[in-house]
Amino acid sequence: MNLITLSHGSGGIKTHNLIKDIFYHYFKNDILLQQNDASILHKLSGKIAVTTDSFVVSPTFFKGGDIGKLSICGTVNDLAVSGAKPLYITAGFILEEGLSIDILEKVVISMAETARKADVYIVAGDTKVVERGKGDKIYINTTGIGIVEDNKEVLGIEKIKQGDKVIISGTLGDHGMCIMSEREELGFDVSIKSDCAPLNDITRNILSVSKNVKIMRDPTRGGLATTLNEIAEQRGISIMLYEKEIPVKKEVLGMCEMLGFDPLYVANEGKIVLIVSNEDAETVLNVMKKNSLGEDAKIIGAVINDGKDKLYLKTEAGGTRILNMYEEEMLPRIC
Amino acid sequence: MNLITLSHGSGGIKTHNLIKDIFYHYFKNDILLQQNDASILHKLSGKIAVTTDSFVVSPTFFKGGDIGKLSICGTVNDLAVSGAKPLYITAGFILEEGLSIDILEKVVISMAETARKADVYIVAGDTKVVERGKGDKIYINTTGIGIVEDNKEVLGIEKIKQGDKVIISGTLGDHGMCIMSEREELGFDVSIKSDCAPLNDITRNILSVSKNVKIMRDPTRGGLATTLNEIAEQRGISIMLYEKEIPVKKEVLGMCEMLGFDPLYVANEGKIVLIVSNEDAETVLNVMKKNSLGEDAKIIGAVINDGKDKLYLKTEAGGTRILNMYEEEMLPRIC
Repeated sequence: MNLITLSHGSGGIKTHNLIKDIFYHYFKNDILLQQNDASILHKLSGKIAVTTDSFVVSPTFFKGGDIGKLSICGTVNDLAVSGAKPLYITAGFILEEGLSIDILEKVVISMAETARKADVYIVAGDTKVVERGKGDKIYINTTGIGIVEDNKEVLGIEKIKQGDKVIISGTLGDHGMCIMSEREELGFDVSIKSDCAPLNDITRNILSVSKNVKIMRDPTRGGLATTLNEIAEQRGISIMLYEKEIPVKKEVLGMCEMLGFDPLYVANEGKIVLIVSNEDAETVLNVMKKNSLGEDAKIIGAVINDGKDKLYLKTEAGGTRILNMYEEEMLPRIC
Repeated sequence: MNLITLSHGSGGIKTHNLIKDIFYHYFKNDILLQQNDASILHKLSGKIAVTTDSFVVSPTFFKGGDIGKLSICGTVNDLAVSGAKPLYITAGFILEEGLSIDILEKVVISMAETARKADVYIVAGDTKVVERGKGDKIYINTTGIGIVEDNKEVLGIEKIKQGDKVIISGTLGDHGMCIMSEREELGFDVSIKSDCAPLNDITRNILSVSKNVKIMRDPTRGGLATTLNEIAEQRGISIMLYEKEIPVKKEVLGMCEMLGFDPLYVANEGKIVLIVSNEDAETVLNVMKKNSLGEDAKIIGAVINDGKDKLYLKTEAGGTRILNMYEEEMLPRIC
C-alpha cells in the first residue's frame, strides 16, 4: 500500500507526480491544466460571490458521503443559498503523513463526481503534508466562486418583515446524527444516512418562481436554531417556529433523545431554510416539493415583531419556549 | 490565558463571539461584514485569476514573519506573478484545541497588516477546531482572487524562446534557512531573516516597462531549481544558469553547507524569477533594482535549445551540471 510521506509535500518530484497522477487525473479541465501559480478563469459577467470552508469531518467516510463529497457540497451550497450560480472551486489539502494514497484517491474521485453533478469546475489546488500526529488523515479547504446574474436581485436580510414565512426543505439533523452513529467509540448500529447533497438545483427552482425570497441559508454547524438565531439578531426581528410542522426522521429523533441532543441544533448538509413573503410561500413550497431534495419541505414558522429579536418554539404541547444560541460543544468535527 | 476549545468550532455562541471579537474586529471591511454564507464582491471587469494555498509552517512565528504574514504574502504573490492585480483573499483557519487566543490574535493582526500593505481585502472566512494532537496550533488556507486588466496580456509559458534571459529579484534561500534556524531541536544561533514579502508592487513595476516578460514565478517550496525545472519540462526548452551570478547571502550559504542543502532548492517567500526577451532584460533589471524588494536583482541565466528540456548550472569552476528535480524531503513544513 502506498502511503503519503513528507516528501509528497516538499514541492519536489513526489509532489509533482501526486498532482499529476491524482489531482490532474480526476479533476482535469482546461483552467486547472494551465498549471500556473494562479488560474485564469473564463470571462465572467455579473456580481461575483465568494465563500470558503475547511472540512475536518471525522470519520473520513460515512453513510451517504465522505469528506470529499462534503467539501464540494458545503461550498456549492453556501454559494447557492446566497442566490449565486456556483461555477468554480479551489481545493487545498492538508494530508497527514502515513495516509494511504488509496484513501486520498477515493476522496478525490468523490470530489470529482460531486463537482460534476453540481456543474462546477475545480480550478486550482494545493497540497501540504504534516507529520504523523499533527493532522488527522485528510483536511480539505474549498473556496467557491459563483456569479449573481445581472438580472437577479441579491437576497437581503433587510427585506425580512413581519408575516413572512419560514420554510425548511426537509428533515432535520440527518447529517449530524449520521456522523455520531459512525463514530467507532459509540458503536451505534443505526442506519442514518447523511443528507449531504448539492443544493444549487433546488435554489434555482425557488428563485425562478418568486422575487420575494428574502434570505436562504443552509443550516449546517449549529443546526436550524443557530442559523435562525443569527438571522433574528442581525435583522432585529423575532421568529416563531411550530414544533408540530418541523420534519425530523424517527430514527434521528430517537438517537437525539438517547444522547440528549435537540435536532434543531444538529448539523444538516443538504437542507435549505428560507424566509419568503406570506403571499409567495405556497408557490415556493410547491416548487420545492417537486425537487427530490425538497420532497419533505414544510412551512415551519413565521416572522413576528415583538421587539425582542428572539427565536421561539411553539411546542406540540401548546407552550412557547425560547431557542437560544447554544453555548457548549455538541458534536466536534461534524463537517 | 484564554484557550481555544472545541466549542469555538461548534458554530454556537463561542464561535460567534470569536468571529466578532477577533476576525471581524481586525479584518473588517464592507464585504466581509455582509455576514452571509457567501460574500458578494464589488463588480469586477477583466479576466479573473484565482489561486489557493494552505499554510502549515512550523514554528508559527519566525524572524521576518509569521504564519499570518506568510499566508497573505504567499497568495498575493501567486496572483502577482501571474500578471494579476491581487484584490480579495479568503481565510480558512484550522485551530488546535488548546491554542492560546493571544497567539491567534497576533497572527490575525499580522494578516490584517500584511493585507493592508498589499492592498487586498479579506472578504470571507471559516474557522474549524480539531482536538489536541490532530493539528499543530494553527493552519491557514488562503484563496486569492485578482484581476488581469483588460489591456494587459496574460503571461504565457508558450512565449518563451531561445535567447530569453532569466532574472532573479534577490538572494536565494533566506526563508527556508530562517525556518530551519528557528527549529528548536536544531538550536542554531544565526540571524537569518525570512524574505517573506508581498510582491505585487514589484511585479507591477516590471510589467509597466516591458511587454516581453514571458513568465514570472515565485520560487517557494522546492526553490529556484524546482520552479525552473517545471518551466523547462512544461515548455520543452532548456535553461542554463550561471552560478557566479546567483545571489546567496553568506550566512545562508554557510548554513546550507553545514546542513548539506543546496540554496537553489531552498524555499523563498519574497522573490521572483522571470523570463524576459533578451532585448528587454536590462530595462526590466533596472526597474527591479529601484524597488526595495529587487535591490539585489541579477540576470542569472538564459534559455537555450538543446532539445533536452533540462536545467543546467555553469559552475564557478567552469563545469556544467544538470539540476534535476529533487526526490527527497528537504525541509518539512517550510510554508
